[in-house]
Amino acid sequence: MNEKNTISPELGSGFKDYLPEDMIPRQKMFDTIRSTFERFGFVPLDTPGIEREEILTGGDPNFKMQIFRTGLRIGDEGLALRFDLTVPLARVVSLYGDRISRPFKRYQTGKVWRGEKAQAGRFREFVQFDADIVGSERMSADAEIIALMYETMSSLGLSRFSIRINNRKLLNGLTDYVGYDQSLNADVLRTIDKLDKIAWEGVSAELKERSSFNDDQLSKLKKFLDLRSSSSLELLTELSGLMASSPVAQRGIAELTEIANNLKSLNVPDTSWRIDLSVARGLGYYTGPVFETILDDLPSIGSVFSGGRYDDLVARFGDRSVAATGASVGVDRLFAAMEKLGLIKKVMATAKVVVLNFDSTAEDYCQKIVTAIRQSGLQAELYLGKETNLKAQLAYALGQNIPVVVIAGGSEKDRGVVQIKDIQRRKQVETTFDNVSAVIKSILQNAEAVV
Amino acid sequence: MNEKNTISPELGSGFKDYLPEDMIPRQKMFDTIRSTFERFGFVPLDTPGIEREEILTGGDPNFKMQIFRTGLRIGDEGLALRFDLTVPLARVVSLYGDRISRPFKRYQTGKVWRGEKAQAGRFREFVQFDADIVGSERMSADAEIIALMYETMSSLGLSRFSIRINNRKLLNGLTDYVGYDQSLNADVLRTIDKLDKIAWEGVSAELKERSSFNDDQLSKLKKFLDLRSSSSLELLTELSGLMASSPVAQRGIAELTEIANNLKSLNVPDTSWRIDLSVARGLGYYTGPVFETILDDLPSIGSVFSGGRYDDLVARFGDRSVAATGASVGVDRLFAAMEKLGLIKKVMATAKVVVLNFDSTAEDYCQKIVTAIRQSGLQAELYLGKETNLKAQLAYALGQNIPVVVIAGGSEKDRGVVQIKDIQRRKQVETTFDNVSAVIKSILQNAEAVV
Repeated sequence: MNEKNTISPELGSGFKDYLPEDMIPRQKMFDTIRSTFERFGFVPLDTPGIEREEILTGGDPNFKMQIFRTGLRIGDEGLALRFDLTVPLARVVSLYGDRISRPFKRYQTGKVWRGEKAQAGRFREFVQFDADIVGSERMSADAEIIALMYETMSSLGLSRFSIRINNRKLLNGLTDYVGYDQSLNADVLRTIDKLDKIAWEGVSAELKERSSFNDDQLSKLKKFLDLRSSSSLELLTELSGLMASSPVAQRGIAELTEIANNLKSLNVPDTSWRIDLSVARGLGYYTGPVFETILDDLPSIGSVFSGGRYDDLVARFGDRSVAATGASVGVDRLFAAMEKLGLIKKVMATAKVVVLNFDSTAEDYCQKIVTAIRQSGLQAELYLGKETNLKAQLAYALGQNIPVVVIAGGSEKDRGVVQIKDIQRRKQVETTFDNVSAVIKSILQNAEAVV
Repeated sequence: MNEKNTISPELGSGFKDYLPEDMIPRQKMFDTIRSTFERFGFVPLDTPGIEREEILTGGDPNFKMQIFRTGLRIGDEGLALRFDLTVPLARVVSLYGDRISRPFKRYQTGKVWRGEKAQAGRFREFVQFDADIVGSERMSADAEIIALMYETMSSLGLSRFSIRINNRKLLNGLTDYVGYDQSLNADVLRTIDKLDKIAWEGVSAELKERSSFNDDQLSKLKKFLDLRSSSSLELLTELSGLMASSPVAQRGIAELTEIANNLKSLNVPDTSWRIDLSVARGLGYYTGPVFETILDDLPSIGSVFSGGRYDDLVARFGDRSVAATGASVGVDRLFAAMEKLGLIKKVMATAKVVVLNFDSTAEDYCQKIVTAIRQSGLQAELYLGKETNLKAQLAYALGQNIPVVVIAGGSEKDRGVVQIKDIQRRKQVETTFDNVSAVIKSILQNAEAVV
């Protein structure tokens, strides 16, 4: 190491560190998501961050998403970083066949990577937390996913959110209803997807220019997008009249009607979800219902929990089609939003107790004390920093917001006692070595009662 | 998707999927490690999987470890996948200065990647789980790491393991004691590190050939490596006599003596650790005590929990040296070992209850039942697969080892009751809708009592 030529510790752009004050509440968030997913009976899966390239692209030479290639090759095949957890799930379903249960209700969390241009709020690496049901064609499976989305958001302490639901079959039915060629549909949907950003003016201009829509087509489309009603079921009834000419749209409407009825039985309140005909979802693999979740107070950050049905994805690996539906929490985006909304409480320490360590003749005694406290099940830290005086060590404990401080120097060691400081109540008691954990537990119980 | 040209779902070699039956116990292992680390007051950190290349290599053109490059460049700089969690920690310490507490006791878990030749038991991607103390020169910090290693292994249900401890300063003192040039030391240590694999015959032959050792030098080295004693403290006393000519070795001996005394106060039994003078640890950044953990019944798989002191690593980023020590669990290797030792219990399901769903006229009722069970805090699954008859759905529940099955068809719906099957006791009871959760909880409590 050349001291004159040191290395900058900066991260590449689009990447992010999570320091403990953020990581402690972030981990609490992971724990809440996981326990909610398990309450619905989902089971965990883990797959590598690196996959064979053609698994990710589906062998499609026009594959649009920017993936990170790793430089490593096996034979003439490249390896690349996964961009989501859904494609690896489809691979697993195909590869392990009988070793996994059907229906396969799996959850998975992990980092994914996208080689996008780095910009505000866009990360090149982020964590997803997915739940999917593979092997069920029932609309009650889609309803189950939506109920899971509702329960997860609620468990995280969020109440002001809307789950927006649509169906790709309605969007595919637009070709019949509006009257344009199937081949234009991908482009048309991509334009509609911008409605939130560029409004109807922008969307209609783009459709005129790119897809040669005439005024009649535009007015039909606008009628579709403007459809509103006092209830979802009424909306679906109106839609059924509007799109009577499209068989595929009628199937989509029947599916959404079934989901709406299921959501009642699953106790998902009407106020937390609605049919939104402008929801398209970018990924190409969706085939049926699609979902996204918008925070009422931060709509601009986009969806924080999204998904849909993708019945054809597993077929990529040679199996016949396998029905599948699911959704994914964008953990980093949701965490950033909750931070903005003041819902994240920064926490500095995991320790509930710090044992000071200021008298080198008593370090062995302090080690015995901290060991006893830990063995009683409490999180306890022995001070190991470079400060040697009591006051500076105490300042460290206060800075970390640790509620209990244990003090033991030579005189305490000789008498077999310790001093215990209750920071919140500004009280200090002396107790015997054997009583340390019991006294601390009673202080912590009182502290919880106060908070 | 072209059906005639489907894509193989195989993984690249050196990569591994964890199906739920393995992932459920593996996650339990993560939870145990995390709660032990938190019991010692460590706080969580997260950093990206991708780092700037020179951060990983330290700008060393001779850097030997195979890293995965990502293909993405920022300016003329490459980005690559991290090969451990220690280098990113050093970067974080340098980058955030005041925003992190000192001492900084952090833990971190995540995937790391090494572009090694894939071979049995060697993964190209694996999970590490690290705990480090940054900003403490005290040997009690090293002792704390060793105590953490002991407690973690014990909490995982392991008892037959040995933590082997050495000190790089002893190995550096070999130049004085054996009498050879400092510049040869890296090569000599690399050869000594092979002692487990190629025995003394191999080591001595290699030292003769590569480092031109003569018989006198070889016999001195052998004396060092053969040193045994009935206790660690006695061994250190003998070593002190043997290496009297080396000031650096004397410092290493004093450090190990202090650690040995600390381990007594920290209640780490003598039987679970020992001084082992052949432990070198491969990574170049270690500067003081080094640790590794060998399973008594599976020594051949190598160390499952290793680390040491690395006081100079942070200086790579321009700071003056920052004292640091820590250790890392090789989670995948440890999990594989525990599986071999029969310590991993495969678990198929997270759900404790499955609500069958065989009568389409009662699906709404079943949805209400499963929602009520979940709201009572229990993990419950609604059957969503393609089987439509009760018997086949029951077979699914039995296959998953789910202890409670709820049955409700049209007649139960009409009467507002449900049938509850206690699988273990082969009993079935009928109860009202409102009582479902209470009845299930009592069945599960009895089941636990029986197990």
